[in-house]
Amino acid sequence: MSRWAVVLAGGSGTRFWPLSTPDRPKQLLPLATNEPLLVDAMRRLGTLVPVERTLIITGQSLADAVHATVPDVPRPNVVGEPRAAGTGPALAWAAAEIARRDADDPVMICVHADWAIRDTAGFRETLARAASVAERHRALVTVGIVPERPDPGFGYIQPGDKIDGARRVARFAEKPDRATAERMVADGYLWNSGIFVWRVRDFLDEITARTPEIAPALPHASRGDLAAFYAAVTPVTVDEGVLERSRNVLVIPGDFGWDDVGTWAALRRVHDRDAAGNAVSGDVHAVRSRDCVAYADDQTIVLYGVQDLVVVARDGLTVVTTIDGAADLKSLIEALPPAVRNRR
Amino acid sequence: MSRWAVVLAGGSGTRFWPLSTPDRPKQLLPLATNEPLLVDAMRRLGTLVPVERTLIITGQSLADAVHATVPDVPRPNVVGEPRAAGTGPALAWAAAEIARRDADDPVMICVHADWAIRDTAGFRETLARAASVAERHRALVTVGIVPERPDPGFGYIQPGDKIDGARRVARFAEKPDRATAERMVADGYLWNSGIFVWRVRDFLDEITARTPEIAPALPHASRGDLAAFYAAVTPVTVDEGVLERSRNVLVIPGDFGWDDVGTWAALRRVHDRDAAGNAVSGDVHAVRSRDCVAYADDQTIVLYGVQDLVVVARDGLTVVTTIDGAADLKSLIEALPPAVRNRR
Repeated sequence: MSRWAVVLAGGSGTRFWPLSTPDRPKQLLPLATNEPLLVDAMRRLGTLVPVERTLIITGQSLADAVHATVPDVPRPNVVGEPRAAGTGPALAWAAAEIARRDADDPVMICVHADWAIRDTAGFRETLARAASVAERHRALVTVGIVPERPDPGFGYIQPGDKIDGARRVARFAEKPDRATAERMVADGYLWNSGIFVWRVRDFLDEITARTPEIAPALPHASRGDLAAFYAAVTPVTVDEGVLERSRNVLVIPGDFGWDDVGTWAALRRVHDRDAAGNAVSGDVHAVRSRDCVAYADDQTIVLYGVQDLVVVARDGLTVVTTIDGAADLKSLIEALPPAVRNRR
Repeated sequence: MSRWAVVLAGGSGTRFWPLSTPDRPKQLLPLATNEPLLVDAMRRLGTLVPVERTLIITGQSLADAVHATVPDVPRPNVVGEPRAAGTGPALAWAAAEIARRDADDPVMICVHADWAIRDTAGFRETLARAASVAERHRALVTVGIVPERPDPGFGYIQPGDKIDGARRVARFAEKPDRATAERMVADGYLWNSGIFVWRVRDFLDEITARTPEIAPALPHASRGDLAAFYAAVTPVTVDEGVLERSRNVLVIPGDFGWDDVGTWAALRRVHDRDAAGNAVSGDVHAVRSRDCVAYADDQTIVLYGVQDLVVVARDGLTVVTTIDGAADLKSLIEALPPAVRNRR
């Protein structure tokens, strides 16, 4: 049985503003290594799935930039969505396209383009195991990350009964408050990572049975009519539209240093750091400074005697904030005049 | 009796790096108002002395830039020193030049180009009084600033016996440590500001009697031979070379918000501040930030959720430090590679 990979590479991401912009979203930026996150993601899939059987789903306006970033992927495998409709339609389209191209009822491995993962071998091993479980049990398998901290920024999964090295999903929990997150971590909940593994057929069957937002549009996808499919769907996440409604979801714990690199603080966790704990990129000189994040895109940054700052300089614009402030860039962007906010 | 003014506008100033550079020293920067400090200084002298009787002493390489900044001053009144030799030779040359151009034994008022002064009227009133005292008592008069804080960054003057609204100088004290500064302020010491007022003749006589570093070169100055004069002098400050050796020095207290704008912290004191205490210049957007200093010379700076930072962006270089760090930019500059340090 063959395997396919689906890499979700949508999302405009204001969280790394001013480095990230609609034209240059997070997955195209070198945030964890010296390569864009998307390149890291493709390397990571490496031995698991060949590029010929990897689909990348992104926004229509980004498709060329995405392909230019990972030119090994055949251009037809880069799908440009005519509109953002959430992960549900994106994965449904991918499943239908795989079904059209591979009659062997393959397993599809779904990941995002904008993660950082420390332990590539552990990642591959877990996904291979998830694929076996999905095949054997004809289940929707999600990988639940063993939490490294009580992070209120993630959804959580409560594992239930054991079954063949996996667990049934007892409950999906929304992003909690901090106290609830601490209790959940103590109680053995896992982070809902967004890593999914299932047979294409099983996933399409679940959508047909449970997802009225997508099911009526599936015939367009089966015919390969992207525009008609996206015109017909109602936006929905795969979590809400499929997983939370299904009775057949298993979770496999994963512990391979997964990070969704959702904020500058996350970036400080995943990026190489100097002896003083600074994560810097570009022409940055950190003197008597520690635990800072600095990105000099096309200019020079000098830090002197500061700590826990985030400094990003790009195209004549320098943003200076704290690690905490950087977690709420949305409020900043809203407070700025349009001429600054919309700087590209 | 006529009055002349001498404005010392030398000094390369790394203290405001990267905004200040040898080509664009502090006195040519708009640090206190929207005008360069030198323009502020000339306005301040205003009614006290006309521009025709004002000499500006600066470095040879800066003379044209200085004149371009204050074009009302006749070009011959801008003196470009062939080398930096301290305030002693600068004021000695000025005195000799005034003596050549004005036979009336005028009083000369000596100030620096790079100060900020809150109370212009108080400044003028004090200097007019100092001029009267200097004329009547044929004394070297220095204005001692009533301290606003126990600042270890200044020299101090201990006032002695009273004489005609002035005081004899009991002692000049070097820059003290903080504890000593606190004791001096409690004991009524004054800051040694560098504002001096005296008859040209008296000053030249004191130099002839007490300043072997300068006296032998005075005939060159009397002939107007700048190059020969500077070639012949030994560098010395006017404090060390004249005032501390003289028996005829009076001090008049001044209380008009004098600040030597010696650091970014000083700039925060003298510059206009927004409601959150930020002193900003250029295209700066301070959101949820307070008590910062930000200078955007040719780009945009966004501050978000930070305080007590100094951020200076100029010509593709952004320096981020704290108010405290900015007091010791010398250490920073030494720590940087030459390619960054020498950015102009």
